[in-house]
Amino acid sequence: MRGQSKFLVIPQSVDFRGKITIGALVDLILTAAGNNADENGFGIRELLKQNSTWVLSRLAIEVIKMPKQYEWIYIDTWIDDINQLNTTRNFELKNEKMEVIGKARSLWAMINFETRKPLELDKLGGIQNHAEHLSIDMDEPMKLSQIKSDVVRTHQVRYSDIDLNHHVNTVKYIQWMSDNFSLDFYKAHQIKRFDINFMREFVYGDEVEIHAEEVEKNDFHFDLCKNKKSHCRGRLVFQET
Amino acid sequence: MRGQSKFLVIPQSVDFRGKITIGALVDLILTAAGNNADENGFGIRELLKQNSTWVLSRLAIEVIKMPKQYEWIYIDTWIDDINQLNTTRNFELKNEKMEVIGKARSLWAMINFETRKPLELDKLGGIQNHAEHLSIDMDEPMKLSQIKSDVVRTHQVRYSDIDLNHHVNTVKYIQWMSDNFSLDFYKAHQIKRFDINFMREFVYGDEVEIHAEEVEKNDFHFDLCKNKKSHCRGRLVFQET
Repeated sequence: MRGQSKFLVIPQSVDFRGKITIGALVDLILTAAGNNADENGFGIRELLKQNSTWVLSRLAIEVIKMPKQYEWIYIDTWIDDINQLNTTRNFELKNEKMEVIGKARSLWAMINFETRKPLELDKLGGIQNHAEHLSIDMDEPMKLSQIKSDVVRTHQVRYSDIDLNHHVNTVKYIQWMSDNFSLDFYKAHQIKRFDINFMREFVYGDEVEIHAEEVEKNDFHFDLCKNKKSHCRGRLVFQET
Repeated sequence: MRGQSKFLVIPQSVDFRGKITIGALVDLILTAAGNNADENGFGIRELLKQNSTWVLSRLAIEVIKMPKQYEWIYIDTWIDDINQLNTTRNFELKNEKMEVIGKARSLWAMINFETRKPLELDKLGGIQNHAEHLSIDMDEPMKLSQIKSDVVRTHQVRYSDIDLNHHVNTVKYIQWMSDNFSLDFYKAHQIKRFDINFMREFVYGDEVEIHAEEVEKNDFHFDLCKNKKSHCRGRLVFQET
């Protein structure tokens, strides 16, 4: 069943322009996904009872208009398809005037909580009934490939990066990518599309190697590695304002 | 007039233990101060009309019990005293059971928005009527002195550190201090008292030199400098759990 979550853009989630950061926007999208999964009876709390959990493997967002501080965002979300080992979930973002301000598509897997191995989705009885088979008009989340650039920056994972799940919070990965650009760049550009692939988690004490490369004009690819192994890849496409 | 603000402890504001971080708690305290100043007609928006603004010079918090995710916090706040060049504001933090879980005292100055020079508070007509002359049972915010330690870490100020005021957000200063400790340390200790002195702001591109020293057992002092000049000093006192 389709669900809707409503959020206020709070001061802590905006940048120097008063616009929500892409990291904070992803956080709201994931919260909306969690709310909808809970409503449908297959949220994380329910899955944990069966010793399994959801993991996000890919996400793509297309931004039409970035919401600003103290604006309300309405996020509609629904399961599109359910395959053997993954499920696709779509999102439509609206402002107070009910204008569509963004869209998102995501790909999720269910894993065993301890072994971290993927589980077949049919094990979730009745989940097939929740597939709406309703797509959204945007390209699917990209599978991002390795980039050639050197390490542009490193970051040691500290206390403030770690969340309740004892690993680095998703918002931080996105922050490390968006911190690649100057205030002047953000004054002249806005994010058009963001893709992210999650491969491995980072934990306390890890040394994150940040690779970044402008593949085409205003099309930046990122690779967050540990000992040269990719943990998370991302892509930010900007347009001039 | 005394005011009360009510906040939900949201997931983004808690650490790996599910407890609100000291940075996020300070943010709520400052929001409560802003709300009360607005109610009394001398909030920042009002002051900006006269080309002036508030700056926080010192703050001290004593924590009795750190609130956890999804708990509500009630923050009572009032002006204690009004002096020629500064004003003191007190806070009392309560949980849902109306138990006092923390206290805070703060010292504010009013400055000219452009020259950044201090202004006499009497220029704010009627502000004297708002002094409650009601103190709170805790030591006043400490004036922190220089520490001897070397630089333990540096941080280059990036996009995600900058807020709407085009300088580094207060929460970030506190994050840099609290990131001095490991998860193991946080498992065995809790914050008892936090003091902070604001001297100069950090802006985009600054290289922050973080000095830290354990002055006495579980009593840590911090100095955030730029080119060896103090911009912000802090003190975290822990107790074993």
